[in-house]
Amino acid sequence: MLSSEIEIDIRFSETDAMGVVWHGNYLKFFEDGREHFGKTFGLEYLTIFDSGYFTPIVKSEIDHKAPVYYGQVIKVITRYIASKSAKIMFEYEVVNITTNELCATGKTMQVFLDRESRTLELLTPEFYRQWKETHNQ
Amino acid sequence: MLSSEIEIDIRFSETDAMGVVWHGNYLKFFEDGREHFGKTFGLEYLTIFDSGYFTPIVKSEIDHKAPVYYGQVIKVITRYIASKSAKIMFEYEVVNITTNELCATGKTMQVFLDRESRTLELLTPEFYRQWKETHNQ
Amino acid sequence: MLSSEIEIDIRFSETDAMGVVWHGNYLKFFEDGREHFGKTFGLEYLTIFDSGYFTPIVKSEIDHKAPVYYGQVIKVITRYIASKSAKIMFEYEVVNITTNELCATGKTMQVFLDRESRTLELLTPEFYRQWKETHNQ
Amino acid sequence: MLSSEIEIDIRFSETDAMGVVWHGNYLKFFEDGREHFGKTFGLEYLTIFDSGYFTPIVKSEIDHKAPVYYGQVIKVITRYIASKSAKIMFEYEVVNITTNELCATGKTMQVFLDRESRTLELLTPEFYRQWKETHNQ
Repeated sequence: MLSSEIEIDIRFSETDAMGVVWHGNYLKFFEDGREHFGKTFGLEYLTIFDSGYFTPIVKSEIDHKAPVYYGQVIKVITRYIASKSAKIMFEYEVVNITTNELCATGKTMQVFLDRESRTLELLTPEFYRQWKETHNQ
Repeated sequence: MLSSEIEIDIRFSETDAMGVVWHGNYLKFFEDGREHFGKTFGLEYLTIFDSGYFTPIVKSEIDHKAPVYYGQVIKVITRYIASKSAKIMFEYEVVNITTNELCATGKTMQVFLDRESRTLELLTPEFYRQWKETHNQ
Repeated sequence: MLSSEIEIDIRFSETDAMGVVWHGNYLKFFEDGREHFGKTFGLEYLTIFDSGYFTPIVKSEIDHKAPVYYGQVIKVITRYIASKSAKIMFEYEVVNITTNELCATGKTMQVFLDRESRTLELLTPEFYRQWKETHNQ
Repeated sequence: MLSSEIEIDIRFSETDAMGVVWHGNYLKFFEDGREHFGKTFGLEYLTIFDSGYFTPIVKSEIDHKAPVYYGQVIKVITRYIASKSAKIMFEYEVVNITTNELCATGKTMQVFLDRESRTLELLTPEFYRQWKETHNQ
């Protein structure tokens, strides 16, 4: 299974008046994880863009298990989910390194849009088919 | 069914380099919807806080149907989902008023934490039981 | 003097672990004020864009006078600052309506970039010259 | 002169519909720089908090020199500005590492609030006086 791991320092601006990281900011952590996965395995936003596609998020889910406080450090584990369809899917685990607790899990699904027409690609783009083959996915 | 509706102007800062609203910002729109529902039906964050509780989000989901561009106006329809457990659940519809398209749907689940101890309340708090009774939920 | 006024509800996500609005979010309030000014007086982002220009912010300043808490309502007063140069300048006052306190003041300066080449326009664009004339600025 | 340097990857969510980093996000980069300075020289938010103080930003300025695009890497140089008054002041330089351009400069000023009463401290807190002495400021 393809996965990558990245450490993230919490920004003060990411906390809220409950003193913890505001729930919506986890989608930024997932983005960091996804981007890091892309750098590690050659599936970056700009590579995709240069191949002629946008890959907007069409679905996202977050399950919160424990709060994260300012001053704590987290890591995001990003796992690639193989699929036959023209989609990119990831699962995430956010672990609070300071407390060694699992603080959140999540999922995202991306589709391919033609960069110019912004229409949905129903078939797997060639560059992505090759990427999957190279990585046995 | 209890529901409320609020119009929101898109902020330029909420767009991304694809020229559309960044997907994570929909959780802010859901927050706006939830807050507006709270004002309309007497279930505001500060009312809950004054009753001795925090109600953090423990689960959230977004399904994106269509992009929203800067300059467009959206409305968020927030529907209360009745439940026997000690939870607050909402469903959301984000409608692009400018194009009359449904652009996203979503769900959130909140639990009750004791404000002082930050421990989970397994039983429905009395103030919430009364609120549900008043609104036939 | 040209000025406009807009009320804004604070989002919970805009607060930080000190329990008040995070200082950087005032630039979003200034953006709201500027956008509202644009709608009121016909100087909107999209009008400018359609005239062939981007108007990025090249300078911004915020002076904080008093904190704003969640649940409070603010208004932003946006004042146009006349200038002979090819710039758009505004001054802002953020007033806490709930407490009737002035909570922040600020300034922004925008320049004109050609939309295609992204080069700086040193001369006042014709559409802006006409806008200034129409409004005696 | 005390200064520190930190590299930052741009998040996709930090870009806007002009395709560049939204101007307000530089205050997050300044926060990253300030936090890194604090870690390097023992003047962290949590140290200050444990000494009995909040240090809210009361003034901030940003001057933009050049845009930053998604996929580029920046560094923030944070310089401590010595002062006799009960304030913490920093100057910032944001350099685009990818293009080797200076993209922004800025300043912030923080004051000391008593953590409990939230009243302004007019005299330099003892812990800060010692910190300045230790670092010859």
